[in-house]
Amino acid sequence: MSTTKDIEEGTDFIPKFDDNGLITAIAQDSQTGQILMVAYMNRHALEMTIQTGFGTYFSRSRQKLWKKGEESGHVEKVEQILVDCDQDCLILKVTVDAGQCHVGYRSCFYRALKNNTSKKLEFIADRAYNPKKIYSKNS
Amino acid sequence: MSTTKDIEEGTDFIPKFDDNGLITAIAQDSQTGQILMVAYMNRHALEMTIQTGFGTYFSRSRQKLWKKGEESGHVEKVEQILVDCDQDCLILKVTVDAGQCHVGYRSCFYRALKNNTSKKLEFIADRAYNPKKIYSKNS
Repeated sequence: MSTTKDIEEGTDFIPKFDDNGLITAIAQDSQTGQILMVAYMNRHALEMTIQTGFGTYFSRSRQKLWKKGEESGHVEKVEQILVDCDQDCLILKVTVDAGQCHVGYRSCFYRALKNNTSKKLEFIADRAYNPKKIYSKNS
Repeated sequence: MSTTKDIEEGTDFIPKFDDNGLITAIAQDSQTGQILMVAYMNRHALEMTIQTGFGTYFSRSRQKLWKKGEESGHVEKVEQILVDCDQDCLILKVTVDAGQCHVGYRSCFYRALKNNTSKKLEFIADRAYNPKKIYSKNS
């Protein structure tokens, strides 16, 4: 059994999966620092990510392993994997060649809460590609 | 009932809380882009964050509202709140004056997986403050 000190101050990688067997993973552009997407990994997805060097997740909606870009071609080349203090969250520092979000933006975070409001968003990015072209060609 | 199009392409802020009533929130340094910490908000914590302009979360371990820095003084001034495509994850762009991690680092992500290993971490940051000094003075 690992102690808190082992987990927080040690050099053993002891990723903590939640009750559903998942750990949160943030893909961050290694060049710009932009946060591109947030997804989840089970142990197998994490192992595949480490082995292959490409971001691989577990799709909660489809309940299956999902190599990012397997359909769109927009893969994530993983440069570095960071872990937080309690080892229940990962950052993948990635290199990408195109938009990462299925809606067509570079990042999934293309909207921000409007100043001085609590219910209204504004768009803060332009579309990076046309998702209809990408996703229809393979289906 | 909101449609996928409303959620993904609309301007209504419709945050999606999970089965535990929580949404993932990433605090990112608004100046450097460094990801500082990942925590969770219930609806009340999100409302408090918007109202006060300071990062406020729900502590899963203590099961209570938690204004970041209430004990350490290391508050997060929120500059902007971003939401992702399916509105189940937030980024807080924050200004901070000191380390954010309770272990003493600026960011909770102070370790990375060692190159060509799958089980060993290496430290990639220096301590920003001494947590013993910060947390003992209030307890």
